[in-house]
Amino acid sequence: MPTKRDRDKVSNAVIRRLPRYYRRLDELHRGGVERISSNALAKSMNLTASQIRQDLSYFGGFGQQGYGYHVETLRDKVAEILGMTSGHKAVVLGCGNLGRALLLNFHFAQYGVQLAAAFDTNPELVGTSIGAVPVLDVAMTEEYIRENGIDIAVLTVPQQAAEAVARMVIGAGVKGIWNFTNMELNIQTPGITVEDVHFADSLLALSYLISDQ
Amino acid sequence: MPTKRDRDKVSNAVIRRLPRYYRRLDELHRGGVERISSNALAKSMNLTASQIRQDLSYFGGFGQQGYGYHVETLRDKVAEILGMTSGHKAVVLGCGNLGRALLLNFHFAQYGVQLAAAFDTNPELVGTSIGAVPVLDVAMTEEYIRENGIDIAVLTVPQQAAEAVARMVIGAGVKGIWNFTNMELNIQTPGITVEDVHFADSLLALSYLISDQ
Repeated sequence: MPTKRDRDKVSNAVIRRLPRYYRRLDELHRGGVERISSNALAKSMNLTASQIRQDLSYFGGFGQQGYGYHVETLRDKVAEILGMTSGHKAVVLGCGNLGRALLLNFHFAQYGVQLAAAFDTNPELVGTSIGAVPVLDVAMTEEYIRENGIDIAVLTVPQQAAEAVARMVIGAGVKGIWNFTNMELNIQTPGITVEDVHFADSLLALSYLISDQ
Repeated sequence: MPTKRDRDKVSNAVIRRLPRYYRRLDELHRGGVERISSNALAKSMNLTASQIRQDLSYFGGFGQQGYGYHVETLRDKVAEILGMTSGHKAVVLGCGNLGRALLLNFHFAQYGVQLAAAFDTNPELVGTSIGAVPVLDVAMTEEYIRENGIDIAVLTVPQQAAEAVARMVIGAGVKGIWNFTNMELNIQTPGITVEDVHFADSLLALSYLISDQ
């Protein structure tokens, strides 16, 4: 595996393509495909074969001349590169509609992330479970994160609470914040990654694409 | 405004940056900033000034040498390019947790999209409202879309229903599907845009970024 320094050289565009490689290879594997040429893989993903080869070259070469890629091996390598085998553990902060939707319908485990607990302020929710995940009192958050080695916080709190909750979980030791608040967090802490899920950007791209047709 | 043919030349990367320009310019405007140099705008967005100039050149030039950009004017232009002034109308299909989260917390109108109605199969929900949006019987979907000129369908149905519901709304005349089902839809209909919100890709990118640190 590449070192941290190697990983830092990888462009954002490559990082954004890696999950797509994983999904495509997993689909192929589940469909019974054992090997695939870089041309065929590229075509099925609207990329070029040279782009795929270049993307993967950051992490070592995986194809063999004249053979192509072994689908399952490459899928597992991409999974490892993506940190799916790193044992990440997440908590969900805020059990409103969006938090509930993620707790009930999003398969964290499928992506190598263990969903350990959820937190809320509502005394009627605390002590219950959503799906199989226990809902704990928000006052327990820091202690829980420290004691259980949680490294990802899923932020589904109301916007007015977002900044304060983000600072709290960073203080408690998480490395990554998956931010669903549709709000830019002003976090400059070294070593902390904020991944924003910008619903608005996605809707606006769709709006662009269907306009003037 | 550019013609459809001009718009087709715009790369996906540029399309994905346009909403970011809009958000940044709107923030600057609300913060009282009247004008900004392309250098300062670029720096605040982790881009280069030449990239911004090139991106905007697809849609005509908006800056003036030695003056920079007039923030409000450029924001309004970008809004127009994004189709925010095109009068798009959306319906939400599926009022489970995710549908409810969008209905209650996502401000469609802020992005120029009128949210007209929601649809569900649950007789206990039909006839009620979520937020200010009426929930109608799913059997009414096609008629409603036709009669009200709906062009965007927000897909928050269960995965097993996704493909069939997508085909139904396309048959009824929508141009765009905002797909929250975490499932690839097999839609090849010309003139139809599917915008996937891939939660998994976002989580995997975060997983990558916090691994090996």
